[in-house]
Amino acid sequence: MDDRINLAEKLALLPEAYQPGLIGYLNDYKLLVVKVDGEFVWHKHDDTDDFFLVLSGHLTIQLRDRDIELSAGELYVVPRGVEHCPKADDEAHVLLIEPLGTPNTGDAGGERTAVEQQI
Amino acid sequence: MDDRINLAEKLALLPEAYQPGLIGYLNDYKLLVVKVDGEFVWHKHDDTDDFFLVLSGHLTIQLRDRDIELSAGELYVVPRGVEHCPKADDEAHVLLIEPLGTPNTGDAGGERTAVEQQI
Repeated sequence: MDDRINLAEKLALLPEAYQPGLIGYLNDYKLLVVKVDGEFVWHKHDDTDDFFLVLSGHLTIQLRDRDIELSAGELYVVPRGVEHCPKADDEAHVLLIEPLGTPNTGDAGGERTAVEQQI
Repeated sequence: MDDRINLAEKLALLPEAYQPGLIGYLNDYKLLVVKVDGEFVWHKHDDTDDFFLVLSGHLTIQLRDRDIELSAGELYVVPRGVEHCPKADDEAHVLLIEPLGTPNTGDAGGERTAVEQQI
């Protein structure tokens, strides 16, 4: 991780949707890329905000009171404690930034909790 | 800042190069967009890494021992304590993420130290 990180190249290494790839660090935060396809699970992070930047495609971040619609070049930070559920009708590519140790499924847990692979 | 942030729209609000625009927060980090045109100043941040994601154009992050060349969709995190000097021959658009209170000129200070405007 000593040099530039090409996000599209990293995304091409991911085998499937909702398997985040760890691409680097910013202090005690992790930088992840993920393919989103279909609906994830409703969850929240009580201790941290949650950063989403869409790199390609279209992402909907469902909140309980509205949907946040994001296209490429658009970002949204889900405030801590706010329930959300990402979904994409077609594959979308997303950059995520979260504190180290933050589980992708937040408080929900379950089978979709991912072990991030360094890519 | 309650809704999606369109990076290109935010960049269009910036009047000139090296005047960062504050577009949001991630916990105690600030999210900034900036136009880079020409050479900045050599500096370092002793207490934090420094995140650069190129959104358009081409950015060179000069380090003392090499140059990091970044095109759109490429990022680099300058490790804390490492001297660097960004430059762009033509205007490049960049997303920056830094802890609150981090000055853009790091330890160098001087006339190019910017007061970030929320945009």
